[in-house]
Amino acid sequence: LCPVDKAINEKIQEDTSSLSFAVTGCTCGSACGSWDVRAENTCHCQCAGMDWTGVRCCRLQAA
Amino acid sequence: LCPVDKAINEKIQEDTSSLSFAVTGCTCGSACGSWDVRAENTCHCQCAGMDWTGVRCCRLQAA
Amino acid sequence: LCPVDKAINEKIQEDTSSLSFAVTGCTCGSACGSWDVRAENTCHCQCAGMDWTGVRCCRLQAA
Repeated sequence: LCPVDKAINEKIQEDTSSLSFAVTGCTCGSACGSWDVRAENTCHCQCAGMDWTGVRCCRLQAA
Repeated sequence: LCPVDKAINEKIQEDTSSLSFAVTGCTCGSACGSWDVRAENTCHCQCAGMDWTGVRCCRLQAA
Repeated sequence: LCPVDKAINEKIQEDTSSLSFAVTGCTCGSACGSWDVRAENTCHCQCAGMDWTGVRCCRLQAA
């Protein structure tokens, strides 16, 4: 590998290690589609009697 | 900073400035889970009597 | 274009060609907000009598 490619790869490694998971959407039990995201890391379902929640995440660069 | 690292950083800055927010998911009032995204930037909830909608966005590179 | 910029651009092209679509959220008919993602590429709505499902995707680098 030539020095330039090496520098590029190192930069990519560096950036990749700073990735973290971000919430992209939530799902809830009992057909509930009303939710919000708290503290950027928790799905909160707003209907009464909730038994489960689920989350979709993608690994993105933290802002 | 050596010239190669400088070139890499400039390219990253350039790319970062072209990022824009993309809708990754929507949520609706009244437990409604039926929605669509209009014009790539608006959450439209399809149930009757909607009072609010919410959106999750991530900053991504525009296509 | 100088050789360094060329190397950077080639690397970006390379990375871009390895992007693939990832599910970021799902939506379902009949107001249903309960869903899961199967095999990383299919929205499955969990309510009875489902007639349609929708998906939001973003183009991201495959893990």
